[in-house]
Amino acid sequence: METNDPVDKPTKERAGATPPSIVLVKPQLGENIGFAARAMGNFGLHDLRLVAPRDGWPNEKALAAAAVAEPIASGATVFETLEEALADCNYVAATTARPREMIKPVLSPETASTTLRRRTQSGERCAVMFGGERNGLDNDSIALADAIITAPVDPNFASLSLPQAVLLFAYEWMKGSNPEALGRATTFDGPAREGLATPGTVPASRAALFGLFEHMEGALDAAGFLRPPEKRPTMVRSIRNMFHRMECTDQDVRTWRGIISAFTRRPTSSKG
Amino acid sequence: METNDPVDKPTKERAGATPPSIVLVKPQLGENIGFAARAMGNFGLHDLRLVAPRDGWPNEKALAAAAVAEPIASGATVFETLEEALADCNYVAATTARPREMIKPVLSPETASTTLRRRTQSGERCAVMFGGERNGLDNDSIALADAIITAPVDPNFASLSLPQAVLLFAYEWMKGSNPEALGRATTFDGPAREGLATPGTVPASRAALFGLFEHMEGALDAAGFLRPPEKRPTMVRSIRNMFHRMECTDQDVRTWRGIISAFTRRPTSSKG
Repeated sequence: METNDPVDKPTKERAGATPPSIVLVKPQLGENIGFAARAMGNFGLHDLRLVAPRDGWPNEKALAAAAVAEPIASGATVFETLEEALADCNYVAATTARPREMIKPVLSPETASTTLRRRTQSGERCAVMFGGERNGLDNDSIALADAIITAPVDPNFASLSLPQAVLLFAYEWMKGSNPEALGRATTFDGPAREGLATPGTVPASRAALFGLFEHMEGALDAAGFLRPPEKRPTMVRSIRNMFHRMECTDQDVRTWRGIISAFTRRPTSSKG
Repeated sequence: METNDPVDKPTKERAGATPPSIVLVKPQLGENIGFAARAMGNFGLHDLRLVAPRDGWPNEKALAAAAVAEPIASGATVFETLEEALADCNYVAATTARPREMIKPVLSPETASTTLRRRTQSGERCAVMFGGERNGLDNDSIALADAIITAPVDPNFASLSLPQAVLLFAYEWMKGSNPEALGRATTFDGPAREGLATPGTVPASRAALFGLFEHMEGALDAAGFLRPPEKRPTMVRSIRNMFHRMECTDQDVRTWRGIISAFTRRPTSSKG
């Protein structure tokens, strides 16, 4: 009996596919964290990550609001920084009602569900991040994402509450798990899929990418490029966004670090 | 000029079509009534009806939770019985996680949106009803409906919170009306659309991109990076492919040329 045979499990995720993580960035109210956990449970998501929750953690109100999804809330992982929360992820989407001036792919929740399903089934770890109640995600957080998710809303009432935003993505995720759409894979590999073909590779881990950002920005500071100081944040975001659009593999990150090292090597050691 | 001609208004509601009413049957918590009103506002629904709200009406907590949708909450109509609340309706759907033993059409939220849109555009007044927090709709209430709406959920976590259930229907209603418009429109730009957002820009010309390639590869040759010679063609192709995936704008090309210049500037002129 081959238990991993996809034919045996028509309604399950393909073996090895981890559903996306939900990352709440600086959430404020415990109730909203709990409601978000409950929405996750309703639609088959389980990994909840919290970045610097305002009222600390654990939070009794969050556990109460989660209702039957209490295990999801109590199992949440807490991080001090967004970078740490995303470090093991290969693909990250940011939710916002207003895609701003960033050059980044914009996905509806429905398209995001399709995109993330394809990626998780390729073995990628994916995450969707949501900002806090007051202002949502700031530009620096969004600059750490590969894509933006924006829902169709009344343009005059565009601001979803935090748990409602989580629910929409989770609902579309569940809708996309239609069993009929699965099970087409062979023993060796699945059919060709739309999207970026990266045979045998996955996108770089966020940790690798953040290391590249640090290397690049340090080198650019040293070279006097990120000036004047008041323009530095915009320049840094713009460069990070370009790297995200590149969808670097680990090998690509190594290439870029090599390029930066080559450019910043002391002339006296340029033979090395 | 026939302004009511639907051909003239492909993305608008047909004149005379009233969006469905949302009927909350014996809701308990004011906050949940407010969250439901907010979800309605997010997705273009306006008529809220309350049947015997437990804590009376008006309810300060409901108005506060509604946030910007406060007018929807404060404009809610209160009825003593469900029959009165539905009296002027032509078609009614009941939401439940468990379609029970009733012989009634069962619709997904998506199909319900299509069905109710067709009916509202035929001049029918439609309503969707939701039960209270504790037990949802009872069998006698469901028996007053033409159809049942049930969402695809994890069978082990099937119970949606009241505002989340309202949100799902409202979201599908909005998706059915104008699915291309995403997010918040401003006076300066329209709603977001799917795809790579490139506000006010177009991809760089090939000439600009080829100029960047030449600059980059010359600098890398000078830095001794593109070695050994037999690997140079592969390395060059790999770097060019990364730049293509980046989908550079003209401004991005200028940024990269600035970066290369900053890195390759003679140390003696690094103050320049």
